Amino acid sequence: MLFKDIAIIDENFEYQEGCWVGVTDDRIAYIGAEAPADAAAYGEVYDGAGKLMMPALYNAHSHAPMTLLRGFAENLPLQRWLNEKCWPFEAKMTPEDNYWATVLACAEMARYGVVGFSDMYYATPERAKAVVEAGLKANLCEGLIAFEPKPYASYPICQMNEQYVATLHGMANGRILMDYNIHAEYTSNQQVCEDIAAIAKAKGLRLHIHLSETASEVAECRERHDGMSPVKYFESIGVLDLPVTAAHCVWLDDEDMDIMAEKGVFVANNPASNMKLGSGFARIPEMLARGMNVCLGTDGMASNNSHDMFADMYLMGLIYKGSTLDPAVVTPQQVLRAATRTGALSQGREDCGLLREGMKADVCVLDVTGPQWCPMTDPVYNVVFSGAGSDVVLTLCDGQVVYRDGAWPTIDLERAKAEVAARAKRIIAEL
Amino acid sequence: MLFKDIAIIDENFEYQEGCWVGVTDDRIAYIGAEAPADAAAYGEVYDGAGKLMMPALYNAHSHAPMTLLRGFAENLPLQRWLNEKCWPFEAKMTPEDNYWATVLACAEMARYGVVGFSDMYYATPERAKAVVEAGLKANLCEGLIAFEPKPYASYPICQMNEQYVATLHGMANGRILMDYNIHAEYTSNQQVCEDIAAIAKAKGLRLHIHLSETASEVAECRERHDGMSPVKYFESIGVLDLPVTAAHCVWLDDEDMDIMAEKGVFVANNPASNMKLGSGFARIPEMLARGMNVCLGTDGMASNNSHDMFADMYLMGLIYKGSTLDPAVVTPQQVLRAATRTGALSQGREDCGLLREGMKADVCVLDVTGPQWCPMTDPVYNVVFSGAGSDVVLTLCDGQVVYRDGAWPTIDLERAKAEVAARAKRIIAEL
Repeated sequence: MLFKDIAIIDENFEYQEGCWVGVTDDRIAYIGAEAPADAAAYGEVYDGAGKLMMPALYNAHSHAPMTLLRGFAENLPLQRWLNEKCWPFEAKMTPEDNYWATVLACAEMARYGVVGFSDMYYATPERAKAVVEAGLKANLCEGLIAFEPKPYASYPICQMNEQYVATLHGMANGRILMDYNIHAEYTSNQQVCEDIAAIAKAKGLRLHIHLSETASEVAECRERHDGMSPVKYFESIGVLDLPVTAAHCVWLDDEDMDIMAEKGVFVANNPASNMKLGSGFARIPEMLARGMNVCLGTDGMASNNSHDMFADMYLMGLIYKGSTLDPAVVTPQQVLRAATRTGALSQGREDCGLLREGMKADVCVLDVTGPQWCPMTDPVYNVVFSGAGSDVVLTLCDGQVVYRDGAWPTIDLERAKAEVAARAKRIIAEL
Repeated sequence: MLFKDIAIIDENFEYQEGCWVGVTDDRIAYIGAEAPADAAAYGEVYDGAGKLMMPALYNAHSHAPMTLLRGFAENLPLQRWLNEKCWPFEAKMTPEDNYWATVLACAEMARYGVVGFSDMYYATPERAKAVVEAGLKANLCEGLIAFEPKPYASYPICQMNEQYVATLHGMANGRILMDYNIHAEYTSNQQVCEDIAAIAKAKGLRLHIHLSETASEVAECRERHDGMSPVKYFESIGVLDLPVTAAHCVWLDDEDMDIMAEKGVFVANNPASNMKLGSGFARIPEMLARGMNVCLGTDGMASNNSHDMFADMYLMGLIYKGSTLDPAVVTPQQVLRAATRTGALSQGREDCGLLREGMKADVCVLDVTGPQWCPMTDPVYNVVFSGAGSDVVLTLCDGQVVYRDGAWPTIDLERAKAEVAARAKRIIAEL
């Protein structure tokens, strides 16, 4: 595909008009102000008039099958939300429920320009199947809740997980990657945490955890672990000595941030979810000032309730100005980088997340002819503060169309909606 | 127009499926579970499959011509934003600039289901012309900045404003209403405030003001006025003894809220703007708990930067859960009521803002077939937290189509965009 005379958000997250962008197979083969010399060798020529191309988005923290719970568990704080609503519902979910909810989540993400997501949940094979069929990419980890003080190897999930890593990691041309999981400090025995960190490190794989989401989580951790915060505790047992994506990170103190900056931990900021559950506002401006790796996630649909990462970009750009009373904190460039390049890096995808020749062709194209885009005095601000996920008209993942003009070439959306609606109804009736 | 088998948000802000809704002239003539007896007398039959009808939205605080400033004045706190960016830009704006920016603002609002707005700005005749042509409704007030200690009658604007009130109030079948304006405590001499309040009260008209937007505004007011907050000060000089819409109200203390509750002041909550300028989070949950009249506004495009009130509904539903750490505060029903019925009442439009027989036919219809709407476990939550303004496919104002399926029958959008883009560029070049 050859994009002709299109505006782009370039690799420095600046706006440029009148570009030509060529995609060959799964890569961005050309970006320039002139047509490429081999223009005729590309397939379809896409007219860029009234369009804006940007890197596609990477959702750094999700639970795709929780799409079944959209609208089910409202108005509750985290612990009651988990104990009274989410866990009983999830206990009723079958592998097929997980599959169909993931199909629908993929459709929703593709529609909003999201091509990759770091997904912590169960039923990993069914999730992998849905993602591969949809043409998206995901870092999957099989969720582990491990209260009992015994070695990781003695949990049945250990063997299961090793099998997933052996069979699924790298499948579909690397679109599926396997991560390891520690659900959280408060749900994981210390020995299990140590074992998992050691195994993941030995295999060169990544870890995806929940971290310091609520004030009570931090307080209870300090009681359990000699006054240590969850960050300090995880550092002390080696959990931060490998590539880690830590979701939430709302209640960090200065020392926590210093440790995470030094260790290069990826913070998956989930602004919608953290407000929805009354968890609070993460100290994102201070994290950015420290040069920490901040990426962006939707979390699951029981606490968001949309996979539209443009809404999360809008929140990330806006709410910390409110929580700090400083209107200059968090620039649109920082927001765009978090949602794209840093997200891709948090998934170990070095060749994704930037419009640059040689990178994977993960891009989204927005229709910018709506009234909300005028004037274009500072288009980068328009993207974050005026635009919307619904302005996306084309999403490519590894060069393949996964959404275009209201259609999903890889997904039977009507079937997925019917399945999800019926399955949510069935589970609620069973409760 | 007769809507057949359509889901609605009813007058209690609850979801109902399978309704018939009939519109005759500018009114909702019928709502019921069966087709009306005189079904054949209606015009077009609109198939409600996959659609959701709700009351249209009323933007309780806007500065429509500031659409010209979208993306121009970023990252600044209120006083620097006003002094260094907005006021110099605005000094260059001609009446025609105001007209075209208002046309574009109307297009954007109609696209997102907004039919009425309370607009504080200059060039009132040009704004009125744009609104009338677009088929929308607005409460307009001519902005007054009055530092000098002299009677309101001695300001040139006084005569101008009286002429606007005489000629524009009630025009276009009541779609245009004139309000009075006091810009804010910090920009208005006490005598002028007293005079305006007395005139507006005598004429039975409404007042639209900025109130307690920043902490420094409140602190400086206390210094100037014997320790009184802006609310207490305005109460003491009679400004709250008539129907008032007070925008922002971020920094209210308990006594302020008690006074405003007693006086029935309408609070125009502007969550996006208050974050964008680093002003803070209003105490909306406490206002709602007191039964105060809370409505919702976008503010101008230099501090938002979108007229999509669904984004503001999303923020109102979400951010106070974050700022109070209580996930149960602010229900979707409270959000919907603020954006619709209370907004209409803040504009003195008793017969607007609810889907009820006999009310004005101000409605918007959403396409709810997108993946983000599934499952529909609690559709009212879907509207506020999963839906988006871009899901609006039809907007009626007084029964007339002002937006439908990507088209604006009353507005030449291409012309308006070209005019606004060129005019913004011209002004920035002049600065």
